[in-house]
Amino acid sequence: MKKILVINGPNLNMLGVREPEIYGKTTLKDIENMIKNAAEKYGVLTEFFQSNHEGDIVDKICSCFENKVDAIIINPAAYTHTSVAIRDALSAVKIPAIEVHISNIHLREEFRHKSLTAPACVGQICGLGIYGYIAALEYFCKNKEISK
Amino acid sequence: MKKILVINGPNLNMLGVREPEIYGKTTLKDIENMIKNAAEKYGVLTEFFQSNHEGDIVDKICSCFENKVDAIIINPAAYTHTSVAIRDALSAVKIPAIEVHISNIHLREEFRHKSLTAPACVGQICGLGIYGYIAALEYFCKNKEISK
Amino acid sequence: MKKILVINGPNLNMLGVREPEIYGKTTLKDIENMIKNAAEKYGVLTEFFQSNHEGDIVDKICSCFENKVDAIIINPAAYTHTSVAIRDALSAVKIPAIEVHISNIHLREEFRHKSLTAPACVGQICGLGIYGYIAALEYFCKNKEISK
Amino acid sequence: MKKILVINGPNLNMLGVREPEIYGKTTLKDIENMIKNAAEKYGVLTEFFQSNHEGDIVDKICSCFENKVDAIIINPAAYTHTSVAIRDALSAVKIPAIEVHISNIHLREEFRHKSLTAPACVGQICGLGIYGYIAALEYFCKNKEISK
Amino acid sequence: MKKILVINGPNLNMLGVREPEIYGKTTLKDIENMIKNAAEKYGVLTEFFQSNHEGDIVDKICSCFENKVDAIIINPAAYTHTSVAIRDALSAVKIPAIEVHISNIHLREEFRHKSLTAPACVGQICGLGIYGYIAALEYFCKNKEISK
Amino acid sequence: MKKILVINGPNLNMLGVREPEIYGKTTLKDIENMIKNAAEKYGVLTEFFQSNHEGDIVDKICSCFENKVDAIIINPAAYTHTSVAIRDALSAVKIPAIEVHISNIHLREEFRHKSLTAPACVGQICGLGIYGYIAALEYFCKNKEISK
Amino acid sequence: MKKILVINGPNLNMLGVREPEIYGKTTLKDIENMIKNAAEKYGVLTEFFQSNHEGDIVDKICSCFENKVDAIIINPAAYTHTSVAIRDALSAVKIPAIEVHISNIHLREEFRHKSLTAPACVGQICGLGIYGYIAALEYFCKNKEISK
Amino acid sequence: MKKILVINGPNLNMLGVREPEIYGKTTLKDIENMIKNAAEKYGVLTEFFQSNHEGDIVDKICSCFENKVDAIIINPAAYTHTSVAIRDALSAVKIPAIEVHISNIHLREEFRHKSLTAPACVGQICGLGIYGYIAALEYFCKNKEISK
Amino acid sequence: MKKILVINGPNLNMLGVREPEIYGKTTLKDIENMIKNAAEKYGVLTEFFQSNHEGDIVDKICSCFENKVDAIIINPAAYTHTSVAIRDALSAVKIPAIEVHISNIHLREEFRHKSLTAPACVGQICGLGIYGYIAALEYFCKNKEISK
Amino acid sequence: MKKILVINGPNLNMLGVREPEIYGKTTLKDIENMIKNAAEKYGVLTEFFQSNHEGDIVDKICSCFENKVDAIIINPAAYTHTSVAIRDALSAVKIPAIEVHISNIHLREEFRHKSLTAPACVGQICGLGIYGYIAALEYFCKNKEISK
Amino acid sequence: MKKILVINGPNLNMLGVREPEIYGKTTLKDIENMIKNAAEKYGVLTEFFQSNHEGDIVDKICSCFENKVDAIIINPAAYTHTSVAIRDALSAVKIPAIEVHISNIHLREEFRHKSLTAPACVGQICGLGIYGYIAALEYFCKNKEISK
Amino acid sequence: MKKILVINGPNLNMLGVREPEIYGKTTLKDIENMIKNAAEKYGVLTEFFQSNHEGDIVDKICSCFENKVDAIIINPAAYTHTSVAIRDALSAVKIPAIEVHISNIHLREEFRHKSLTAPACVGQICGLGIYGYIAALEYFCKNKEISK
Repeated sequence: MKKILVINGPNLNMLGVREPEIYGKTTLKDIENMIKNAAEKYGVLTEFFQSNHEGDIVDKICSCFENKVDAIIINPAAYTHTSVAIRDALSAVKIPAIEVHISNIHLREEFRHKSLTAPACVGQICGLGIYGYIAALEYFCKNKEISK
Repeated sequence: MKKILVINGPNLNMLGVREPEIYGKTTLKDIENMIKNAAEKYGVLTEFFQSNHEGDIVDKICSCFENKVDAIIINPAAYTHTSVAIRDALSAVKIPAIEVHISNIHLREEFRHKSLTAPACVGQICGLGIYGYIAALEYFCKNKEISK
Repeated sequence: MKKILVINGPNLNMLGVREPEIYGKTTLKDIENMIKNAAEKYGVLTEFFQSNHEGDIVDKICSCFENKVDAIIINPAAYTHTSVAIRDALSAVKIPAIEVHISNIHLREEFRHKSLTAPACVGQICGLGIYGYIAALEYFCKNKEISK
Repeated sequence: MKKILVINGPNLNMLGVREPEIYGKTTLKDIENMIKNAAEKYGVLTEFFQSNHEGDIVDKICSCFENKVDAIIINPAAYTHTSVAIRDALSAVKIPAIEVHISNIHLREEFRHKSLTAPACVGQICGLGIYGYIAALEYFCKNKEISK
Repeated sequence: MKKILVINGPNLNMLGVREPEIYGKTTLKDIENMIKNAAEKYGVLTEFFQSNHEGDIVDKICSCFENKVDAIIINPAAYTHTSVAIRDALSAVKIPAIEVHISNIHLREEFRHKSLTAPACVGQICGLGIYGYIAALEYFCKNKEISK
Repeated sequence: MKKILVINGPNLNMLGVREPEIYGKTTLKDIENMIKNAAEKYGVLTEFFQSNHEGDIVDKICSCFENKVDAIIINPAAYTHTSVAIRDALSAVKIPAIEVHISNIHLREEFRHKSLTAPACVGQICGLGIYGYIAALEYFCKNKEISK
Repeated sequence: MKKILVINGPNLNMLGVREPEIYGKTTLKDIENMIKNAAEKYGVLTEFFQSNHEGDIVDKICSCFENKVDAIIINPAAYTHTSVAIRDALSAVKIPAIEVHISNIHLREEFRHKSLTAPACVGQICGLGIYGYIAALEYFCKNKEISK
Repeated sequence: MKKILVINGPNLNMLGVREPEIYGKTTLKDIENMIKNAAEKYGVLTEFFQSNHEGDIVDKICSCFENKVDAIIINPAAYTHTSVAIRDALSAVKIPAIEVHISNIHLREEFRHKSLTAPACVGQICGLGIYGYIAALEYFCKNKEISK
Repeated sequence: MKKILVINGPNLNMLGVREPEIYGKTTLKDIENMIKNAAEKYGVLTEFFQSNHEGDIVDKICSCFENKVDAIIINPAAYTHTSVAIRDALSAVKIPAIEVHISNIHLREEFRHKSLTAPACVGQICGLGIYGYIAALEYFCKNKEISK
Repeated sequence: MKKILVINGPNLNMLGVREPEIYGKTTLKDIENMIKNAAEKYGVLTEFFQSNHEGDIVDKICSCFENKVDAIIINPAAYTHTSVAIRDALSAVKIPAIEVHISNIHLREEFRHKSLTAPACVGQICGLGIYGYIAALEYFCKNKEISK
Repeated sequence: MKKILVINGPNLNMLGVREPEIYGKTTLKDIENMIKNAAEKYGVLTEFFQSNHEGDIVDKICSCFENKVDAIIINPAAYTHTSVAIRDALSAVKIPAIEVHISNIHLREEFRHKSLTAPACVGQICGLGIYGYIAALEYFCKNKEISK
Repeated sequence: MKKILVINGPNLNMLGVREPEIYGKTTLKDIENMIKNAAEKYGVLTEFFQSNHEGDIVDKICSCFENKVDAIIINPAAYTHTSVAIRDALSAVKIPAIEVHISNIHLREEFRHKSLTAPACVGQICGLGIYGYIAALEYFCKNKEISK
């Protein structure tokens, strides 16, 4: 059975609290449940992880290698723009990953337009709200069928 | 009945020919059919447009206002990085748009990392191959249900 | 009889529709009529041209040489910041031109502060709304008398 | 009765002397008379001020608030590119101002292409010679009628 | 009773040891006691936190929301210049914060002149030694009376 | 008896008029009185100076050397970002100075984030409103006692 | 029989008119005839195409794939510095191309020193006047013999 | 007896797994043993530390002061390019350190050419594979003899 | 009789006081006397002017035109790096000027390496202490003879 | 009889050895013979010079003035991007020169895209392999006839 | 028998004279002897070369190809930051090289942080004083054994 | 007896030939004689050296240490902007040097405004023609007397 790890970075534990005019009122728990339900339809196992610590996220990604994770969905939040360590971790484990941002980073401060982590991912989705996570999930679950 | 316009920019007519190691062998026609089929399931009308002309794309976007287009899926290709005119057209019509790139632009030349058009869109999807179009379509079609 | 060509660039066909908080509700037709009326008082012929195509604008400028146009009033809109081709066309025909912007480009995004086309013009007017076109017209029509 | 203040910045007292190949031989006095005459036709009062001192220009702009000035026409000359203080003064009094440059600043040294003061103005006119002042005056005097 | 949280970032545990020619010999404990004593005079509760971990500081700030902290005094030290995560945490909790630096950061290396975290704070104090913490405290305690 | 000079730069004479959403309605006179009252408690003499002229401020700072000024509190306003002359004056007299900004300069335009004058000061306070002046005053008056 | 396509970009239709001090008086027609005559000596077919439209040039390059063009000689003129679309078209068709500029672009404005299109070509010739086209032609026609 | 601490930064726990074409198949354990063996010959104690957490590395360096560490060999990996905190920690403890990189950072991405931590070290070794650690060790152990 | 004007900019009135480790203990009066004595040997009239005001210096330069000044020796001090107005004044009067700096500006802060005023001068002398003024004087007085 | 000097810069003596995947296996001697043979057909004298020394190349160019060289073909290799001295030498002798690069410099490292020497040449040819030398030769030999 | 060439660049002949506070008092001769002695222990031949001429160093590197040099130890000194020619020579001969700097270049001027030559080397050692040469030597001599 | 070395860099051997509109018709020999004559009046020995080779100039400067040169006058010409080696040589010998440029480098290309060598000199003179050499000479010969 396929296993997908969903990683959320710093301050995403504050979802529903933090700047609701940008992110809406749904909590991280809500999002995780939504993803879990969607994944079950495809017979895919999900694991969730949130941390405000760059090092924890690196640890988690490194552990994927042993934990037989098949794919990673990651919203590195603030670390998108500052973490070479997360980028290197993603490159090291060589497990396909998709970077997700809830808001459109191209509409925010200049320094948020550039992603240090995206080059170590398959691709990036931004601005589609929490649907971004679902789209990433479906990419890993039903992508093969599409090209048929 | 909802109508979604799918715009493909310069050289995407060459899909299947152009740099197959990056884009694969599927033709633009194949992609359009795939999107059309997917849209039909949601009872959504699709219209397809491809042009190598920046002006044609601007014309097409401007016409959306009169043509009652509900949403736009756009792969501006090379114009992503050079066209203020397409950005302004998207801002002018104020119809929600999603920018799609087949390849991961963050893995290509430095100048392709920056999008001039993304700030005029709801969001951006890149690197997910032709599935990116399907994800954009589903965002417009079933997004509302997700947050229930 | 003197002939003045008024060129409007991409998305100006959307005037009255596009971002009314910046440009107001007057349509391009309204503006052209206003200019035409003002020109008639000076016994000057006007010709109007709008296109979303960089190439069309270049074609039009090139044709001025044969069409005996005496002066050009041009609002290159988005192409102001991206078109070396329009700049070169204006330099090639060597017909005096004034660049007009309805809004104050210095109050908008950083990339709109720089004009690629202005160095090929006599001068530039921005932020004076549609009056900018009239001021440009009067420069060509009554400028000589002023310095008397 | 409406009152318009015309401010000329550093070295404009040298007009007719300074680099005549760029600015022509008309003196500042000539220009001021021309503006005064033009203003009288509209029943508008004019006041003229020239200084080589950034601080004097800031003082003058600040005093507009008490002196009931209705509009400002300003050619900040060299201070265009170096004075945050004049920009702040214009923002502080919130009286509509138009920035005028006799020559086309886009044809001169790179550092003259950028205006620090223009974002605190309604708009900017450059390259139209002394007619620029007249155009600015007319914007304030007859602008309303135009859009009828 | 009002509660103020004082956060000290990386290497501030080394105060009294680290580069004494810049920071003096007072230890972090000394500073915390001094702040505590000063706060007691205003009947204000203080809590102290020091960590070398960016993630710990983010965790702590996030917890302020539940812990009913009224104000934050933060010396992010090295993270001032590299942490988008701390900036986002401060924005997320929306509790007023003041950034304090013991030394004058404008006298040190170029990269220390820019603060990533200051835009998420009410203001910044630097170069006033340990008095900076006291000034920040007093801002929160007696600021209201001042403007009377 | 200790003497402290308080210098306010360009447009601060407009306080209460200028952009009240940023600076509030207190006038410069109000601020000076507040500082004077606070200083009297410490038995410290205050002198106040405001000018819109960079040169006047330089003159004033130079005169401090002869006038036996013990400390300077300076809000250089716009000149913070453009005046090497004020920076050099502060370095020349070698009298301790604190730079104060009423608003948080890190929240305003990019060019206001950089201070040319701060490296010639002991430190900088910004964003704390008029309390910033009081904090600077107290640094000079009671700072010594604190570290006891 | 080998076929070589010669593409001339914007404003080259104005040759003989435009800035003769840079380009000389020969018309585009003259140049095309000269190339055609030279090509005939090698038994090589030539096709000529000039357009002021970026999109037309992209269309033309894309069509080369079907039209069995063996080599392209292209003077992208202004588009050299702004067109990612033409670069991508050249990469897409993978037909060997040589970029030609009549004048020495390194002697003109800074922005003309950089070519966006050259990396998609075999090489570039500039400053050799109309001979540049002939040299490009001969590269394709007799290059093989040279290295013998 | 001399004590040398060897610190390895993020993802170095993945050695042997991560991008073997760059780093080879030796594990971190192998490297540590090799260093330990080499140190024993010089009668030098070694301590090993690896962490993916910037804060842990800062904590470890700070503790060196109390733990009587004589020298540090550090491979900050990704943190080389992003951590001011590690740089400050090294400066704070003032224990001589050598920065080691297994690969030649000058052959990798542009952002890896710049080291934030090297200025707080005695020197830097890169590109010499695992031998870099041995060379650093020998610098500390037998360096004095060399200059005899 | 030839007349040479010697202008000294901001803070040079502080010479002998200001940063003596850079400029020495000689006062401005001493320097002016030295120049005057040297000039008398050549039968040349000297006039001295010092101001901390950019505007005063501009006024003075403008007045040279009427005052029949033959040459200018100017040490613009801080204004060297910030004053377009002084540069324009020097260009306007077209009287030959030499820029003098007492210290070697290339050894000081990066922003002091660039001179805005030097392009409006015949040349620049820096780092030669007060001898710089004498060398400038002699250039104007005996230069002609040298080339014989 | 016309004389053309062919200068090859640093490391071109290694042709056939150095990075053959970029430059091919032909030696410098082969190239020189090829050029010599081609030149003889036009009755033109050739002289060949290769040096790894910037100074030697400058000496050689300077000597052209006395040696009656009619034209220069120069491949400055690495010095293209670093030598102001060679640029100045070419400007000094004012003998027409063409810069040749065997490979397409626009396909190599960023710093190789910029030529310091090209502005002192008539033009530049790159990417056409050794044919570039022949094309340059023919430009000098038969260019006149072409425009007939 | 293995042969290692040790190249020292400009001004290293001045060692013992030049800025002793940075480099110490050992002469180049001392260093060469030390390296020679160390090499003899490994049965390795050494050759020494010092030159202030970029071209000489390029010549020497090129000659390595014929002279059967097995490895190069190079301290390019000032040429590290300016010589593309030495970089190209090292790439051309494809003999493994290590770049050595006696001082820590990351502690010196900004322009010394960047190495143009390091990308053509196996690796770089800096800041370890003359031991850097020994470490480089040992890398080539005993490196193989280490990984056993 | 004092000895002064006068070094002239690349292409200065071409003086009288090279771009006479910038440098005049005097030859290098003429200049050297003029300096020699002037020096004799002060009882100072002069030595002259010109080379187009960066390495020769470095050699010459290094030799000054042994040759008991008291001062250096150097016109590094093109090497001013590219030679770290000459800068390091001047720093190494610690003999006072003055940099001289015949033309005003601030009026030429942007890259000539920056001097790499000036920070290793006492000062710089530019734009004063050949008198610059004389002024430098007199600085060394009679400077002491001036300050009396």
